[in-house]
Amino acid sequence: MTLVVQKFGGTSVGGTDRIDAVAERVVAARDAGREVVVVVSAMAGETDRLLGLARAISTHGRPNPRELDVLLATGEQVTIALLCMALEKRGITARSFTGRQAGIVTDSGHTRARILEIRGEALLEEIRHGRVPVVAGFQGVDAAGNITTLGRGGSDTTAVAIAAALRADECQIHTDVSGVYTTDPRIEPNARRLERISYEEMLELAGQGSKVLQVRSVEFASRYKVPVRVLSTFESGAGTLIAEGNGTVEAPEIVGIASSRDEAELRVSAPSAELLPGMIGALAGSRIEIDLIVQNLAVDGSANVTFTVSRQDYDQAREILAHFFRASDVRIEGDSRVAKVSVIGNGIRAQRADVAARMLGALAREGIVARQIATSQIRISVVVRETEMERAVRALHHEFGLQHAVTGREANA
Amino acid sequence: MTLVVQKFGGTSVGGTDRIDAVAERVVAARDAGREVVVVVSAMAGETDRLLGLARAISTHGRPNPRELDVLLATGEQVTIALLCMALEKRGITARSFTGRQAGIVTDSGHTRARILEIRGEALLEEIRHGRVPVVAGFQGVDAAGNITTLGRGGSDTTAVAIAAALRADECQIHTDVSGVYTTDPRIEPNARRLERISYEEMLELAGQGSKVLQVRSVEFASRYKVPVRVLSTFESGAGTLIAEGNGTVEAPEIVGIASSRDEAELRVSAPSAELLPGMIGALAGSRIEIDLIVQNLAVDGSANVTFTVSRQDYDQAREILAHFFRASDVRIEGDSRVAKVSVIGNGIRAQRADVAARMLGALAREGIVARQIATSQIRISVVVRETEMERAVRALHHEFGLQHAVTGREANA
Repeated sequence: MTLVVQKFGGTSVGGTDRIDAVAERVVAARDAGREVVVVVSAMAGETDRLLGLARAISTHGRPNPRELDVLLATGEQVTIALLCMALEKRGITARSFTGRQAGIVTDSGHTRARILEIRGEALLEEIRHGRVPVVAGFQGVDAAGNITTLGRGGSDTTAVAIAAALRADECQIHTDVSGVYTTDPRIEPNARRLERISYEEMLELAGQGSKVLQVRSVEFASRYKVPVRVLSTFESGAGTLIAEGNGTVEAPEIVGIASSRDEAELRVSAPSAELLPGMIGALAGSRIEIDLIVQNLAVDGSANVTFTVSRQDYDQAREILAHFFRASDVRIEGDSRVAKVSVIGNGIRAQRADVAARMLGALAREGIVARQIATSQIRISVVVRETEMERAVRALHHEFGLQHAVTGREANA
Repeated sequence: MTLVVQKFGGTSVGGTDRIDAVAERVVAARDAGREVVVVVSAMAGETDRLLGLARAISTHGRPNPRELDVLLATGEQVTIALLCMALEKRGITARSFTGRQAGIVTDSGHTRARILEIRGEALLEEIRHGRVPVVAGFQGVDAAGNITTLGRGGSDTTAVAIAAALRADECQIHTDVSGVYTTDPRIEPNARRLERISYEEMLELAGQGSKVLQVRSVEFASRYKVPVRVLSTFESGAGTLIAEGNGTVEAPEIVGIASSRDEAELRVSAPSAELLPGMIGALAGSRIEIDLIVQNLAVDGSANVTFTVSRQDYDQAREILAHFFRASDVRIEGDSRVAKVSVIGNGIRAQRADVAARMLGALAREGIVARQIATSQIRISVVVRETEMERAVRALHHEFGLQHAVTGREANA
């Protein structure tokens, strides 16, 4: 029999009426002859409420991480109990499982724990008895039995990890969008839902600003080859299947355009290149991640480096640089109003120069200058002014014909 | 070193400001050189909020008991985390323990589980390291690892059970009253706080309407000889110590007057006594508990039985009786507006008739008729009209001189 793991996020379980709707989705899957394991998040707003309590009572608003995990884990525990009640009302025998009861063992990295192992016997036993196990996402226990949480997007990771451990046929991520789109439909109304996308492409999309799935859960799915389907809780439809690529690539296939406003740019001009490596170290020491980086060396030995950081790190990064270069003749400039636009697709692998040329050409025709450019195997990203971002997305979406069928990938519905 | 278990109820932890105040109480105990284990309830209102969610989503508003326990257990889990954060802010290393983590093993009677065993090693280990364990009251796990709750007053029971398991010197129940009183001060302003009371007397007080402590926790304390001190979270003071009686009793010592409005009276008049035992069985089958019961047999063989039930069971009890006697010539009458007033004290044991005579005499002088009377080793209870209850309490409080010092028992503060 087919086994599916169905995960429902916070918006999908945001009230008792919505939990009833989720129960109906589970009933439908069972009626279609499937075995189901359900994974749920905390009800929308609940995590924020708990965080507010924790900040109010903690030293400098920074709660102890172990205790924060104990606190936050209650959010999902509430949802599993309520969903089981809603399922029972529909004649389905369901039993709730906390992270611990589901056998989810993590390391001890409170608030950002990693799953080490899933002891799936208890869940399999439930399935064998025809019952529906409802598992709290986002949480586990370490080897000593301390409650841990997995950090952002943790419930997606729980769902994928359980699907891997139970060798489920599919992991369904039910969310408030109907699948993965070629770009953000709020920016480009012609954006199309993809029927299928590879793990690698999805990883790049997620890493470059698509919020449909967290990077970690896609990495997990990719490693264990778990087919993941993103679909809407509230509408019917096949959603988007994330699975292995089909190997041969003939056309310069592009699956999507990602964009992110969460960017800021810093430029450092120094009379010599010597100080620059230390600067990177100083930023890394404060856990500030540097993204795109371009270095120019002039014939006189002077150098300038331009790089991007997350916008929320911008002020701190400027301070660190000012402190680091306080005794040197170094100029620091910055712009916190930039954005990153990325073209993503497996087709880039074979024809990167061609894709890059088309990309820059399309932007140029719009009068948009790519201030920086960076590439990976299946992605080309550019930094543009924030005010130009949406226009850049639409121009690139059109340039690569994403409003039309992407061979074998377009959605039917 | 002295080890105390400090339990704080829902009102005491009803908000982050109150949790801060509780943390100060713990700090004070530590500063006084004591080792402390803390047990807490859910924040006031939280259990009702969760129950509301459960009822809204369940079949006929009756949630599955296993899942209800999973849901309700989150209430205490929130409090333990927040209190640990508040303690850390004050420089105390504290660690939270869910029922499971604290080693509280119960039977599988969901929503009213009984503690079977406390595996106290983890808590003792904390104390050995100079840390303060903060334990979730009201909850445990059964042998299969299912989350259970202990039902009403469960947190008091948790605290007493932990004190017994760890051989603590004292179990302190911090509540919103400053101790155990000779009677309800809202009825009799001259009520006095008792400095000390025996387990047996406290059991009778709790069983007869005093809401300071639940009967179960007192039974537990009595069985394991745990000294329990009831005191206020919000005011200083020595409270009331519940401990073993001092053995010899010379005066007809009365410690308190309990009263309860939660009563209703039923009278059944039958032409023969034959049917009556079956009637009791029918009520018991619906889990309706019968309290005082008086049976009169007339010379013609007819019989009448008068008994009391909890007021909330009154309507259902009448229906059951009407159904049970539907084919018989039996008259059923009832009064849901009665109350029970009890005189309690170890002194009753030796001089019951004397105490009963004084009791009835004092009531008679007030024009109050005792409709029924029942006695135990250290208690005499009467049923009166509800409208007469408060007057009865005041008359008896005065009759037994409770406004004055009770030998060796009156409070100093």
